[in-house]
Amino acid sequence: MKLQEPSVESSGSTFTPLVVLELTLDAKEEAVAWLLSRIRDPQQNGGAELLVEQLGPGVGLQEKENPNMFLVGASRQRLLSGAEDVGLFKEFNDGSMRGFTCSNKHNFKDFQGDGDNFLSMAECQYIIKHELDTLRAKDETHVPGYTQTKLYPGKSIIRRLLSKGILIQIFPLHENEELKRLCFTWYKKVKLSLQPLDDIRHYYGEGQALYFGFLEYFTFALVPMALIGLLYYLFDWEDYDKYVVFAMFNVIWCTLILELWKRFSASLAYNWGTLSRKKAFEEPRPGFHGVLGFNPVTGRQEPLYPNAKRQLRIYLVSLPFVLLCLYLSLYVMMIYFQMEGWALTVHDEDPTFWTGILLFIPSIIYAIVIEIMNIIYRCAAEFLTEWENHRLESSYQNHLVLKVLIFNFFNCFASLFYIAFIMQDMVLLRQSLATLLITSQILNQFMEAFLPYWLQRRRNKKLIRKLRKRRTLEDKELPLAEQVRLEADMSTYLGTFDDYLEQFLLFGYVSLFSCVYPLSAVLVVLNNITEIYSDAFKMCRVFKRPFSDPAANIGVWQLAFEAMSVIAVVTNCALIGMSPQVKAYFPESEMQLILWTVAIEHGLLAFKFILTFLIPDVPKHIQIKLSRLEFESLEALKKKVHFMFCVWMEESFNFGWYHSCVV
Amino acid sequence: MKLQEPSVESSGSTFTPLVVLELTLDAKEEAVAWLLSRIRDPQQNGGAELLVEQLGPGVGLQEKENPNMFLVGASRQRLLSGAEDVGLFKEFNDGSMRGFTCSNKHNFKDFQGDGDNFLSMAECQYIIKHELDTLRAKDETHVPGYTQTKLYPGKSIIRRLLSKGILIQIFPLHENEELKRLCFTWYKKVKLSLQPLDDIRHYYGEGQALYFGFLEYFTFALVPMALIGLLYYLFDWEDYDKYVVFAMFNVIWCTLILELWKRFSASLAYNWGTLSRKKAFEEPRPGFHGVLGFNPVTGRQEPLYPNAKRQLRIYLVSLPFVLLCLYLSLYVMMIYFQMEGWALTVHDEDPTFWTGILLFIPSIIYAIVIEIMNIIYRCAAEFLTEWENHRLESSYQNHLVLKVLIFNFFNCFASLFYIAFIMQDMVLLRQSLATLLITSQILNQFMEAFLPYWLQRRRNKKLIRKLRKRRTLEDKELPLAEQVRLEADMSTYLGTFDDYLEQFLLFGYVSLFSCVYPLSAVLVVLNNITEIYSDAFKMCRVFKRPFSDPAANIGVWQLAFEAMSVIAVVTNCALIGMSPQVKAYFPESEMQLILWTVAIEHGLLAFKFILTFLIPDVPKHIQIKLSRLEFESLEALKKKVHFMFCVWMEESFNFGWYHSCVV
Repeated sequence: MKLQEPSVESSGSTFTPLVVLELTLDAKEEAVAWLLSRIRDPQQNGGAELLVEQLGPGVGLQEKENPNMFLVGASRQRLLSGAEDVGLFKEFNDGSMRGFTCSNKHNFKDFQGDGDNFLSMAECQYIIKHELDTLRAKDETHVPGYTQTKLYPGKSIIRRLLSKGILIQIFPLHENEELKRLCFTWYKKVKLSLQPLDDIRHYYGEGQALYFGFLEYFTFALVPMALIGLLYYLFDWEDYDKYVVFAMFNVIWCTLILELWKRFSASLAYNWGTLSRKKAFEEPRPGFHGVLGFNPVTGRQEPLYPNAKRQLRIYLVSLPFVLLCLYLSLYVMMIYFQMEGWALTVHDEDPTFWTGILLFIPSIIYAIVIEIMNIIYRCAAEFLTEWENHRLESSYQNHLVLKVLIFNFFNCFASLFYIAFIMQDMVLLRQSLATLLITSQILNQFMEAFLPYWLQRRRNKKLIRKLRKRRTLEDKELPLAEQVRLEADMSTYLGTFDDYLEQFLLFGYVSLFSCVYPLSAVLVVLNNITEIYSDAFKMCRVFKRPFSDPAANIGVWQLAFEAMSVIAVVTNCALIGMSPQVKAYFPESEMQLILWTVAIEHGLLAFKFILTFLIPDVPKHIQIKLSRLEFESLEALKKKVHFMFCVWMEESFNFGWYHSCVV
Repeated sequence: MKLQEPSVESSGSTFTPLVVLELTLDAKEEAVAWLLSRIRDPQQNGGAELLVEQLGPGVGLQEKENPNMFLVGASRQRLLSGAEDVGLFKEFNDGSMRGFTCSNKHNFKDFQGDGDNFLSMAECQYIIKHELDTLRAKDETHVPGYTQTKLYPGKSIIRRLLSKGILIQIFPLHENEELKRLCFTWYKKVKLSLQPLDDIRHYYGEGQALYFGFLEYFTFALVPMALIGLLYYLFDWEDYDKYVVFAMFNVIWCTLILELWKRFSASLAYNWGTLSRKKAFEEPRPGFHGVLGFNPVTGRQEPLYPNAKRQLRIYLVSLPFVLLCLYLSLYVMMIYFQMEGWALTVHDEDPTFWTGILLFIPSIIYAIVIEIMNIIYRCAAEFLTEWENHRLESSYQNHLVLKVLIFNFFNCFASLFYIAFIMQDMVLLRQSLATLLITSQILNQFMEAFLPYWLQRRRNKKLIRKLRKRRTLEDKELPLAEQVRLEADMSTYLGTFDDYLEQFLLFGYVSLFSCVYPLSAVLVVLNNITEIYSDAFKMCRVFKRPFSDPAANIGVWQLAFEAMSVIAVVTNCALIGMSPQVKAYFPESEMQLILWTVAIEHGLLAFKFILTFLIPDVPKHIQIKLSRLEFESLEALKKKVHFMFCVWMEESFNFGWYHSCVV
């Protein structure tokens, strides 16, 4: 938890800036003063009891410098009590993970002396964010200086300021030293090794680390498939009838890897202390609005929005809109097939090298159009979901994910399903799959890594040139004020949504149709290796540091991948049933063939569900640790009740000391 | 909580006998004395702090009277603290359900004065059972008088005595007054009304009440289907091609009723306070044995049994045995078809009235054989599961339910599936279904209600005759000692397993094939109405009172019914696809028909799963109540932490009173 310039506060303790608050340039002075005093107020008075300092002026690299930037930190004692508030799990002396409590602090493994390096900086920043988020209005009716911006007792001040645009952003600061070390072990080192997941978690929090863990796991899980695919390619096993074996492998593979991922993810989450951590009570999301009323749960006054109205919006606007988009996507697909047909006729009339290339052009154009449609739809889905006015962030996320997933699935795979099952043209399917996969990978890598890198680089160069002009750059380190202002200008990382979505689509390509084009697993493995590097680079160099997110699993994505694996079983069975190889077994009756295919498919689906039940989601050794913890807390509760009873007895009868009771 | 003869204890407080302990006739005296003293010992010394009295001699109705019968009761204060121990939920002043605590007792709705009628007798008996079960060995190495019966520190004494046969049984006493009242409102009243579920729960506990609630719910859910079935029957819509509409109805019906049952069951469980009650830490089941070792969870010494060994037993013995039984069942089915064929040829050769009846004979014999095989298999499954040596009761139950379910499903439905899909003979299917259903219902009612009733009646008559001989029966009430001895001789109720199993099979008959024989729903409704009466009678008059079981749902049976409803969707779709009506739409290509059937089936299955997600398992108003409770406990925790912090501060600095802190 070291930073470049720990300044010394008036009270004598060192102030380490952790989080930056940026208010609008034209924020009213009384509002700023009120906010700062609320943040500094002791907790008994309903404040957050944090330390705040205004950021000094920079060396003037930016054209227009915002003076309303504040650095937030906290005393060590405050951070520790905050860690208890947020229910942080840390490693105990006996190697198990336990909820941190101040009264028990010396029994935690890494707690030495005053607990100086006990909490990682990411944890401190998370605690500060939590404390700021739960800073609640008391008897103020509105934000001082803004009579329009009403406040309701017990509601979060920061969320209100954010949604009204008075507060522009809150973000945690990078640690340059740590970051350099992390970059080195993560993607700069040449030698082959696993990602430093623990370090990633240490720096970015559990949500990020789980994503990178999943990316790595998924890539490794693809390796056997890629190897088999390579063998198919090298030994020319590629006549299209031979894909039965591959399809069988697919069906088992996609069930197994998801089950094993659940176990692996549970191990990770246990070691990171998020597995058994309780979820905090969820507050309304910042954008939520409605008529003032009483929350039936908390009994507090807050904006309410009738559920019936939301349902109307969902079913009368969002649902038709999604269906319309699906129709549009089908329409575009039909245009693609017309182009395909046209290219084929041109090639058939006069087959040259150029017409051979022309054959791929429609697929490439279609792949690009798909990507563009995905992006446009994504924006529309975000707008619509925002407009549906969900009260909780989790409900907002679920509706957004659902909308985006359905469309992306349809948009990317509809043409492949059409080719496979309506046209039954395996050669075209293969060609189309290859073009889609390769084009979308190239586009993605470009959009995701190269573009932001290039933009960032251009901006940095400009800045450094400016800096050179002003003063000689002898000390490589930028001054803190400048560093903070640079970070404030970096792009904001928007979460793991797009990253998971990309993996979801790749998983689809591989699990649904890879038996037709065995090289697809190889392509995805190659893509994912570069993806790890580009994502790592993005996280370290392009984006502001995100607040850590104490996730215990990959959430709704696990469900999405499982749904895809069910579809994969059905698709692969259908492909098997359609293969000439299998058809040869039922020479006289196609009906028999279909019935057998359906029966086997049902058997496989049943087997899949039974497997899901049979394989425990949490590995045995972690289950034991968890139940040991539960057992101990039950025992402790019993003892505590006994102890408190003794206290009460002593207090009631003796009015004296109860130390005799604590044997 | 009134009983016939509340005797006055030496200490002056009234002693109400609640639970009976029966030890073997030849139990060693020192063992009995030790057990009684352990039960009477105060809790500080590791005892149960309960009241125990030896049962006086009866009037000598039995040939051989066991003197080792003891009545267990408890003081009111002890019962209340026990209620806190077991985590009992009671209605709070504000109408919500909360965990009972002694310190807060006056805020609970029905707590008046000393809390005399606050706990129902069933709750008191449950508390006493819990306290007896958790009476643990201290430093004793063996049961006094039985050097072979080892004791391990911290392990339950009662379970040890039970598994060694020193303790024969523990059972709660009936309340004659209450029971009479319950009988009257439950099954003796003539007017049509719902079952008094709250009274049933009050007397028998939540597990029983949930079963009867399910029985009633399921019967009502069947009524629309029965009505449609009757219409089909009355208006002769019964040509076998018309079942498409009925099958469609089936598919939707079986999904909906299960989802709605979940919601209804959650309402019931909430009102009975079991929905949010935490599960207690599960102790090993009495029959569990193994080599002494250290439990990795509790760290205590106890018998351990390697999981690998258990898995070997399951996969190398139990699984082959189950498969063998399934094969046998198939073999019997084939014999049935031979008999069927033989009867048909006899009838075809010379069709008379008697050969017409002969047609039904094979089905009836087969139905009886099925029931007998089910019973034999049940015993074998219990033996095998016992031998698998599961550590926890829940794991034992799950394995037993799985074994029994698979075999019963196969045994009852294999012939129907064979007729429907291999022979494709709808007339035979209909006849077979009707015979199976009617025969098994008659057999069940006989075995379940009439037989035990008759046995019980014979025994009672004998007793009363004896009693008449000894003394004039002027006072109708039997003396307590005699009453207890009578109850000890009653059959033991073995739980709801068989009752749920029967409903599961009936659900199967209705949901799988009722479109072929629409009257089956009518038959099941009629059966269930008599089932309610006969089960109620059984519970009240034939069996010992069972200990109440605080269930929050119907557990593994919900899963079983849902699996059946998935199979029902598949079966009904297949039946639709086979109907001549539908076949007429695809005159030239049977392949098209099958493909469409499969596609629609997949669509319905997907729809079913989506519906399961969309319909919340807990009704909204209960969800709000639950989250309000959670919110309040979070707030209370915060306040408590603050309060305790204050206490600590005051203690540390002022060594004085902290009342100033409690504002």
